[in-house]
Amino acid sequence: MAESEQEAPIGMVALRLHRASEADFFARLGAAGYHDLRMRHSMLFDALESGGTRVSTLAARLGMSPQAMGELVDDLEASGYIERQNDPNDRRARLVVFTTKGEVALQRSYEIIAGMEEDYAAIVGKQRLASARETLTELLTAVEAPEQTS
Amino acid sequence: MAESEQEAPIGMVALRLHRASEADFFARLGAAGYHDLRMRHSMLFDALESGGTRVSTLAARLGMSPQAMGELVDDLEASGYIERQNDPNDRRARLVVFTTKGEVALQRSYEIIAGMEEDYAAIVGKQRLASARETLTELLTAVEAPEQTS
Repeated sequence: MAESEQEAPIGMVALRLHRASEADFFARLGAAGYHDLRMRHSMLFDALESGGTRVSTLAARLGMSPQAMGELVDDLEASGYIERQNDPNDRRARLVVFTTKGEVALQRSYEIIAGMEEDYAAIVGKQRLASARETLTELLTAVEAPEQTS
Repeated sequence: MAESEQEAPIGMVALRLHRASEADFFARLGAAGYHDLRMRHSMLFDALESGGTRVSTLAARLGMSPQAMGELVDDLEASGYIERQNDPNDRRARLVVFTTKGEVALQRSYEIIAGMEEDYAAIVGKQRLASARETLTELLTAVEAPEQTS
């Protein structure tokens, strides 16, 4: 998206804030000892259900090929965050599940995100952050609606 | 980045708004007759200086290999938005420059972005949009600073 010369479009400000907060998140994750977790890993963490999820379902959810998702699962399995188990409901199927190490990392990432929100509220003020969030949420609900994008 | 169960982190709200506004932008660009322009093209438009820019410079700016950038330039040259010219200051070098068609498209994209900002201000209110932008800009300045991300 081209950027105006004067005031940055709100969508570009949003992109910059997303990138900055993402970098902040991974810096904090690294500081917490999780140096081996990257964006592609946390995407998988998000897509993984607590009861376990099939590789094919994870692939469809994240728009990846089953092969690419298989490699990502291999990667996280090798570092001990997840493992493959037999599906108790389908003897032919395998489920990807969190290990205890993975569950601890997931919990830690939630705490980091909560800490970031607290820090951000301290930077701009709790009320202003809440107000900005409310405005953006209202705006994106309207912009995401099909009738607004035609 | 993992998402909290309750209130979405501001960085994720920002990401959703960016994606929605990006989709809105390309929908409007298509409606204006520019069906052949995609994200990768508008990135190049952004990186291209009015006096012309070398392929190697464009590649470095966008973090692409010179070969991948060369293909992107070929693509936009074939559709008539840009062209390669000899660099008047260096006989061995070639510059990528906008054609008239490309300049018109660039101007049209600025108008579309300005129109989006007006529409977004109408949805949430001009003052609220300005206030949210100010809060986000202040926040991202702090978060982007190295001492905040360590």
